[in-house]
Amino acid sequence: MAENQKLCPMFEFAFELLGKRWTGLIIRVLLDGPKRFKEISAMIPGMSDKMLTERFKELEAAGILTRNIYPETPVRIEYELTDKGRALKPAMDKVQDWAETWLTPPDQNNGE
Amino acid sequence: MAENQKLCPMFEFAFELLGKRWTGLIIRVLLDGPKRFKEISAMIPGMSDKMLTERFKELEAAGILTRNIYPETPVRIEYELTDKGRALKPAMDKVQDWAETWLTPPDQNNGE
Repeated sequence: MAENQKLCPMFEFAFELLGKRWTGLIIRVLLDGPKRFKEISAMIPGMSDKMLTERFKELEAAGILTRNIYPETPVRIEYELTDKGRALKPAMDKVQDWAETWLTPPDQNNGE
Repeated sequence: MAENQKLCPMFEFAFELLGKRWTGLIIRVLLDGPKRFKEISAMIPGMSDKMLTERFKELEAAGILTRNIYPETPVRIEYELTDKGRALKPAMDKVQDWAETWLTPPDQNNGE
């Protein structure tokens, strides 16, 4: 168990980070490639810009995404996953598989 | 994005649940097979019995583990993962892979 004990805090950190509201969806959107603030915002209609800003800060601090600033007029800013961020895909896919299989919403009809 | 929108709450629920302190470790311990309270408690030294009781309630409510009561003297109670709980293994493995690769603690020396 010694190894698990050591891994546990990191494991929990990963889940805590990814379990925050909108974080999973933001990462999914960015797995398609770098995007501008307004593009991401438009792709996740229920989320406020304030919330998106907050999540960007957290994910940037965690080294999961970077902000690329292009010195154009007007300045262009794009958000992009780092290697660390892109490496999350298999984990997110597996959690999503589990959620899809086992957390089917009760209001979903079994229409074929 | 419509599909992601619908999946998002379930995905977040999964991560929120598994991101709680000790939950990942409790599930890992139970992936080895059913165990009694004291056995689990002994395998996770830093965790209080009160916390373990709380986590058991949450995981039982989420359908991830069951409590088996054997009418012996004294009564024997074992905690066991359900199919839903056991199905978490691939997701937990992938998150752990990511955490091991990308969240290496800074105090770990690279001694070879």
